[in-house]
Amino acid sequence: MQKYFITKENLLNRVILGDDAYQIQTVLRFKGGEKIMVSDSNKTYYAKINTVTKDEVTFEILEEKAGNTELPVFVSIFQGYPKGDKMEEIIKHGTELGAKEIVPTFMKRSIVKLEEKKIHSKLQRFRKIAKEAAEQSYRDSIPEIPSIPYLKTIDFSSFDVKIVCYEESAKNGELKAFKNIISNLSENMRVACVIGPEGGIDDAELEYLKAKGFIPCALGPRILRTETAVFYILSAISYEMELKK
Amino acid sequence: MQKYFITKENLLNRVILGDDAYQIQTVLRFKGGEKIMVSDSNKTYYAKINTVTKDEVTFEILEEKAGNTELPVFVSIFQGYPKGDKMEEIIKHGTELGAKEIVPTFMKRSIVKLEEKKIHSKLQRFRKIAKEAAEQSYRDSIPEIPSIPYLKTIDFSSFDVKIVCYEESAKNGELKAFKNIISNLSENMRVACVIGPEGGIDDAELEYLKAKGFIPCALGPRILRTETAVFYILSAISYEMELKK
Repeated sequence: MQKYFITKENLLNRVILGDDAYQIQTVLRFKGGEKIMVSDSNKTYYAKINTVTKDEVTFEILEEKAGNTELPVFVSIFQGYPKGDKMEEIIKHGTELGAKEIVPTFMKRSIVKLEEKKIHSKLQRFRKIAKEAAEQSYRDSIPEIPSIPYLKTIDFSSFDVKIVCYEESAKNGELKAFKNIISNLSENMRVACVIGPEGGIDDAELEYLKAKGFIPCALGPRILRTETAVFYILSAISYEMELKK
Repeated sequence: MQKYFITKENLLNRVILGDDAYQIQTVLRFKGGEKIMVSDSNKTYYAKINTVTKDEVTFEILEEKAGNTELPVFVSIFQGYPKGDKMEEIIKHGTELGAKEIVPTFMKRSIVKLEEKKIHSKLQRFRKIAKEAAEQSYRDSIPEIPSIPYLKTIDFSSFDVKIVCYEESAKNGELKAFKNIISNLSENMRVACVIGPEGGIDDAELEYLKAKGFIPCALGPRILRTETAVFYILSAISYEMELKK
């Protein structure tokens, strides 16, 4: 079943507008009568479509959806800005896997430079990818992608737990830090995870983060690509906290 | 440090040939004296390059590399053949995350059809991706990609544990089966994981697999894309078995 995130106002007015309405008419070819889910990022409802035009779809609410699909902790991913379209892949899969916030972050070894005027359009695109991935994975909310900052401008003071992925730890056989932290998380904690870009975290950055309370962690004995580290972290948190024995 | 998988014969003769030699000369521009790792998929050695031409690189062995970077269980991923270039992404990241065997598998809802003559070249390409990902992630061996079979032709009798990802389980709030299985694995067990293509596992396929001893599992409460399921499974196995508290 297709899910749509809409504004609180549109939920109140029982309408879907814009690109979503266009997709419902043109791609899905809905005519009315079909069941969908709608959410204002707070509550999710089962709904039935009434009328369809390319600009506006109207619906009626059938019932509130029970259950919760959000990770029990607030995970922010500070992802060293990677090459190519890897940032999009990270946002797509990171959203499915439950990240609450994804912050593309310029670090020393980021190759990509974005002009100020390009940042706005990048953010628009990233947010669209996050919305679509949240809809597809039946998330209850869309992850925030607030800005594309430089590492040293970020205020990490609100986080309870701070992790920095460090591949030298993997090479040195350090395999305790990450599990120690993740197995001791409790509900609603705020977890910051910093992941370097392709070249990894620079030594000065590592020292800076350690001074801010970050713990260097290896994610198993293999060396993971920058985009794979996110998948590992979020999957491990889900496995530890959401799955039961 | 760059790692190269070479044949037993080339290891004995202390030479690197073919594409790898070309890359060492042309891309890395090594001249001799540089340190690398070489492996015959059995043992890995630190080595020093002696001479470089575009066809042949010679080296001497410095010492055997200690440690092990392989998952403690043999995980075979039977991946429903997906659309676009997702199979390549799955092989790349699945290799980094420790899969021992990746089997692109035609299932009922696979859209892609490959002519017989295309299968050979696809397999060549997939194996090249696996080799490069195994080198980059410092694996001790390259995952096997034996063939591209139809689901019903596969013999699963050698596996100790059999998992099929089933998104209806996630929708129904089933969150125990996967962790129950993974937390009870012991070293060297053989684990088969079947993952459907984009449309998921077909009902008849699910019944067929259940009759073969497969357990349907949800991977958390969110609905994962086909390519994300692999990352979740392998990350969870690594977290459970490789990381220590």
